[in-house]
Amino acid sequence: MNIAILTFEGFNELDSFIAAGILNRMKGQGWNVQITCPTAQVTSMNGVTVTAQQPLEFANTADVVLFGSGIYTRDIAKDTSILGRLQLDPSRQLLAAQCSGTLLLATLGYLNGLPACTDLTTKPWVMDAGIEVLNQPFNAQRNIATAGGCMASQYLATWVIAKLAGNGEAEAAIHYVAPVGEKEQTVTHTMSVVTPYI
Amino acid sequence: MNIAILTFEGFNELDSFIAAGILNRMKGQGWNVQITCPTAQVTSMNGVTVTAQQPLEFANTADVVLFGSGIYTRDIAKDTSILGRLQLDPSRQLLAAQCSGTLLLATLGYLNGLPACTDLTTKPWVMDAGIEVLNQPFNAQRNIATAGGCMASQYLATWVIAKLAGNGEAEAAIHYVAPVGEKEQTVTHTMSVVTPYI
Repeated sequence: MNIAILTFEGFNELDSFIAAGILNRMKGQGWNVQITCPTAQVTSMNGVTVTAQQPLEFANTADVVLFGSGIYTRDIAKDTSILGRLQLDPSRQLLAAQCSGTLLLATLGYLNGLPACTDLTTKPWVMDAGIEVLNQPFNAQRNIATAGGCMASQYLATWVIAKLAGNGEAEAAIHYVAPVGEKEQTVTHTMSVVTPYI
Repeated sequence: MNIAILTFEGFNELDSFIAAGILNRMKGQGWNVQITCPTAQVTSMNGVTVTAQQPLEFANTADVVLFGSGIYTRDIAKDTSILGRLQLDPSRQLLAAQCSGTLLLATLGYLNGLPACTDLTTKPWVMDAGIEVLNQPFNAQRNIATAGGCMASQYLATWVIAKLAGNGEAEAAIHYVAPVGEKEQTVTHTMSVVTPYI
């Protein structure tokens, strides 16, 4: 299973790395989770420089494409030299977006008619793109999912694992990363958010 | 406020970046949160290479030193060429450890007599170091805090902000990163875990 975590200049560390960390719990089952960037390196909104594991084109053949978030997403949404490199297809791929990543899903036309989740800052821009924004952390329909609020990226990762490997694997991944002493309640809550959409 | 997030070869992305992301919510108030490494670059347990923002010695004069976690912590705990570069002092610094980072705090002698939190994998090694391990996500006494389970790093970050800037700033940081539609309950729960130790 190839999974592209799209990570752009100015990225939010929480949005890319919470999802990546949880999805990598499936590494032992052969999942290949890759930080996927338009350039050889990208620097986060807080000045952390990360080396791309894959170029942007990796997304085009990946099984899952997760759009991360960041402070320059409105610029990226207008940059055809970046988005033009993406040729995605929700009939054969899971597409997931976190916070301002939802604006990119909207711009690319994949949210046509679907309500979506995003963060409070991005909300007006997503609405300007003609998308209804929900006051909830997670939403999904068929192969497209969106989440709002940095820590909601755990729901995106859970949805991906549950869709592709079943609820048991999703529960095991969340159990591992959950706080000690709060593991059962975290698994129960996370699954309650995600399972209505699987 | 200078904050060193100690990040070693084989690091766990969740443990370094959840804390860094939340603590960086205080950037506007002048906080300087830095990924601090023994080498110019470190590669995570999942193959993500990050460029150090600061060398390890930055920790020695920082106001807060947060020990991240990773897959090579047992080797690092024996490596005097790494740990010998640290000269910390809990009388003038907050020292916080996440998951296997607790083993480094123990090795350096800062947990003398204090029970601690860590992840389930690291638990036996911390016990071998003579430290009582608690079945809870977070513990702190005076200037030393420990957390267990990747997602518990939000409690470490909350504790640091509450200790140094007050509960109001800590609540605001968690409110920002919490999932949409779950913000109030996330703030209430997080503060309920942390405030008994402030």
